[in-house]
Amino acid sequence: MRLLLISNSTNPGEAYLDYPKYNIKEFLGEKPIEALFIPYAAVTFSYDEYEKKVNERFKEIGHSVVSIHHYDDPVKAVEEAEAIVVGGGNTWKLVRMLRDNKIIELISKRVKQGVPYIGWSAGSNVACPTLRTTNDMPIIDPKGFDVANLVPFQINPHYLDTHPENHGGETREDRIREFITENQDIYVVGLREGSMLNLEGDDLKLIGKKTARIFKYGEEPRELKIGDDFSFLLKK
Amino acid sequence: MRLLLISNSTNPGEAYLDYPKYNIKEFLGEKPIEALFIPYAAVTFSYDEYEKKVNERFKEIGHSVVSIHHYDDPVKAVEEAEAIVVGGGNTWKLVRMLRDNKIIELISKRVKQGVPYIGWSAGSNVACPTLRTTNDMPIIDPKGFDVANLVPFQINPHYLDTHPENHGGETREDRIREFITENQDIYVVGLREGSMLNLEGDDLKLIGKKTARIFKYGEEPRELKIGDDFSFLLKK
Repeated sequence: MRLLLISNSTNPGEAYLDYPKYNIKEFLGEKPIEALFIPYAAVTFSYDEYEKKVNERFKEIGHSVVSIHHYDDPVKAVEEAEAIVVGGGNTWKLVRMLRDNKIIELISKRVKQGVPYIGWSAGSNVACPTLRTTNDMPIIDPKGFDVANLVPFQINPHYLDTHPENHGGETREDRIREFITENQDIYVVGLREGSMLNLEGDDLKLIGKKTARIFKYGEEPRELKIGDDFSFLLKK
Repeated sequence: MRLLLISNSTNPGEAYLDYPKYNIKEFLGEKPIEALFIPYAAVTFSYDEYEKKVNERFKEIGHSVVSIHHYDDPVKAVEEAEAIVVGGGNTWKLVRMLRDNKIIELISKRVKQGVPYIGWSAGSNVACPTLRTTNDMPIIDPKGFDVANLVPFQINPHYLDTHPENHGGETREDRIREFITENQDIYVVGLREGSMLNLEGDDLKLIGKKTARIFKYGEEPRELKIGDDFSFLLKK
């Protein structure tokens, strides 16, 4: 299985999907790929706009995407995809659309057969067993919390250490501590912005300048850096 | 119907539930009330601890709470409650526990019959039609998004203008704009920390020093202040 799970599309002040573009290029390889793009996390902008934005970056690195909304049959689109790219936005809307279009299990099956998968933000979240570590507002009922289950751990994308000054709400770490209290047998990876996880077969590695924060019930959270062993996350 | 819907329990640096205590006192009146407390939003601390923390403040103002976990039959506890108090924490856990204990509709019925309702944070969220404007991490499937439906609009508690510096994730306003795009017929009240809404019959008013930010699809967000007319929010 080949996965590139990216925390966030864009660093503030940069062009959309700019910082991870060379990682995407390396992941997809030299041969030009026309990947299937899933824009369903978009809520306040159109699928056409989203596809255009992503294509600008993909074309820069010798590849391209075609959005699933151009296909009459989304199931057939997934069945024939060379690579699958799932963009960020609102995880709840994304999962509901994936479910309504009956392609969650099919994506999982195709990726397990070797089709490369790239996701960022919500798109990284749906590679997990469930959407239960999303940061997004639940604007629509996803009709079930289970998602593609490509990895046996949860990712919290856009993982954040800072807390708005003088704000009384829970911190991100507080929320993840709630998650592991309620879900004691699963790891959570707090994936900071600018970071990504790359799985190649059984080899899971961190990419980016920041450490990742690993949470599990009964253990103190720990910081792992590039080059550290992440394979324990793959054991069920 | 009588509601006191509070954005947040505690302002940073203050004692738990300190800032709204005189509003709670005024809302409950002079006669000592023993309110039913619902601590189900607690995840990382015990119901006993939660009850104790709330009681410290309630006793300061001449009232008290008894937590629902001391009753053998939660349904009977709600049926006999003089007042209902729902504390904050994790909205998803709260809703799942309310649902498992089969008391959501009963709370709604009792409050519509005149039993005073006080909620903060997650407890204000469950007074809305659904939990779809919560900020919390969905650590558990609530088995349905509908909640008590005491008011026909949505509250976003802990509404926040600031955004962590150099963070690429969506702002709170971005998220609410997604919500109103997906749910075009419903108002959202961004209720800033230190603020509360008080409903007395048909009279809805804002309490606190900050304005509330009102969102509806197709309208520019607007800021309403104390003394402004909020009655349009009550029209379905």
